[in-house]
Amino acid sequence: MNASYQEIGEVFAKHDSFVLISHVRPDGDAIGSQLALGLALEAAGKKVRLINEDGLPDNLVFLPESHRIELPPAEPLDVEVAIALDTANKPRLGDNALNAASKAKLWVNIDHHKSNPCYGDLNHIDSSSPATGQILYKLITTLGLPLPDASRDAIYVAVSTDTGSFQYPSTTEETYLMAADLIRRGLDVGRINSLTYDHNPYRRVELMRALLNTLELTGDGRVAHWDLTMEVRDHLGLKPEDSEGLIDIIRGIDGVIVALFFEELPDGKIRVSMRSKDARVDACNVCMQFGGGGHALAAGIRMTGPLSAAKERVLEAVKLALP
Amino acid sequence: MNASYQEIGEVFAKHDSFVLISHVRPDGDAIGSQLALGLALEAAGKKVRLINEDGLPDNLVFLPESHRIELPPAEPLDVEVAIALDTANKPRLGDNALNAASKAKLWVNIDHHKSNPCYGDLNHIDSSSPATGQILYKLITTLGLPLPDASRDAIYVAVSTDTGSFQYPSTTEETYLMAADLIRRGLDVGRINSLTYDHNPYRRVELMRALLNTLELTGDGRVAHWDLTMEVRDHLGLKPEDSEGLIDIIRGIDGVIVALFFEELPDGKIRVSMRSKDARVDACNVCMQFGGGGHALAAGIRMTGPLSAAKERVLEAVKLALP
Repeated sequence: MNASYQEIGEVFAKHDSFVLISHVRPDGDAIGSQLALGLALEAAGKKVRLINEDGLPDNLVFLPESHRIELPPAEPLDVEVAIALDTANKPRLGDNALNAASKAKLWVNIDHHKSNPCYGDLNHIDSSSPATGQILYKLITTLGLPLPDASRDAIYVAVSTDTGSFQYPSTTEETYLMAADLIRRGLDVGRINSLTYDHNPYRRVELMRALLNTLELTGDGRVAHWDLTMEVRDHLGLKPEDSEGLIDIIRGIDGVIVALFFEELPDGKIRVSMRSKDARVDACNVCMQFGGGGHALAAGIRMTGPLSAAKERVLEAVKLALP
Repeated sequence: MNASYQEIGEVFAKHDSFVLISHVRPDGDAIGSQLALGLALEAAGKKVRLINEDGLPDNLVFLPESHRIELPPAEPLDVEVAIALDTANKPRLGDNALNAASKAKLWVNIDHHKSNPCYGDLNHIDSSSPATGQILYKLITTLGLPLPDASRDAIYVAVSTDTGSFQYPSTTEETYLMAADLIRRGLDVGRINSLTYDHNPYRRVELMRALLNTLELTGDGRVAHWDLTMEVRDHLGLKPEDSEGLIDIIRGIDGVIVALFFEELPDGKIRVSMRSKDARVDACNVCMQFGGGGHALAAGIRMTGPLSAAKERVLEAVKLALP
């Protein structure tokens, strides 16, 4: 049962100290959501800490006030309320972040992942929203909270990165009206997009070349997959965020229904990113077979290796799910 | 001196037959603009022909009513008015298309290229608009012309493809409001974007790999360039539209100010596509030194080869233009 914006607003009004957390290996919607709501609450006079298990990734340093994102402190924070943002399940907040928030007496859970099991005391899960950032825009403007410039920019980046730049089916009339309103509020759209998309480290382009060299099409051209070994990762000196979004290259191949990205992780596990282009193939359902989750058209798994075995098992499940 | 929408509307009202033409090697804004205005005029009861020197490219076949785009007939058409859309200068309409329109007694020229020399009898050049499609949206809605579904979809694709999916600095509040309005008018945003961006032929991904293998950085990492020979073009069986937009991959490298794509063409000429990420480097000015043109941040040249000589000359001019 979703809490209304007003009920969430009452929690904001009644308390003074908040810790905002997003998921491990944070993306634009995760960090953007933390900055958007955190700085709005701060502008409303609240004490706010912004914690992420993995800290701030290099590719989001350009966001105004991004230095506010902290690694979890060793000791639990003295805060009244913890707010989980854009995080499909509680473990994905990370052990250290959970420890940092362990003194909170109330949990608020705001998200757009349909698999979210509502682990908060108050939950607002809107899987029709293309990004948690768009939910927060509505929350902030509906409640009449301040919207500092840094929150404004963070909301735009959250939504832009989670919609493939206003392209995915989840994008609505409201999404475009929001973007127009953010420009009216002073957003420099060319600058923010340039910072978001035009400052890829050269090693990301090298990674693209390396991935293209492993590309395979199977299932009569309906499944495209490529992979990244630890060896290539080390050789190129990659950072976790370098591969973000690259899967769209193979997702975009004509005839491909499911695109898959297999990555060896430093801990020996295999991360699988899955994209579906066809409503008949629910990527979230396939990933849940291996303990993963996400959205119908974009989901993921973190599973045991080795790479070759993970590929075999997942590709088999994908082929069974093909229409 | 720009004609007002009303003056253009009077030309529409006073005449019955129109030929609409866009530039050679048409892109989404060219074909989209022809369909957008052409089908609106037809819905208003006019006789309309849509001509392009190179016909309809494969990657835009998905546009509703795209079969209406014709190659130029051998004999001049019996039409009263010719409308040039999205075409920076008259020769870029193509010899055969110009011949087809040669009986027109009035030329209307609607475009967003700042280098457009106003070659029409009526001209409406708005270089502040991110796409000719957005000018036509304003024209059609201001004049109260019908907006058939096919026009609606064509406008969206024209603007989306010419703004890098609502990212370039030319994107305005008005652009997003327009997109919202098109959704309100029934646009299926997920479907149209999927058709626009997710149906790349496999050979385009092979081309991407081939281009990445020629990538070079010069000018202290501020200039990135890659090239395509006729040999690779033949080997992969490429079509002209396959390379569209790929330059954004190298434009997006951190530190790069100017990105260049050099292509050998079947006629022995070299096509140069140039992108600038810095307002201090005017790509249009650099390209005009070689007889090219375009916009400040996106311009092009068609020049004599061989490839190596063209690269040398253009790279030299680019380095002189660096801040």
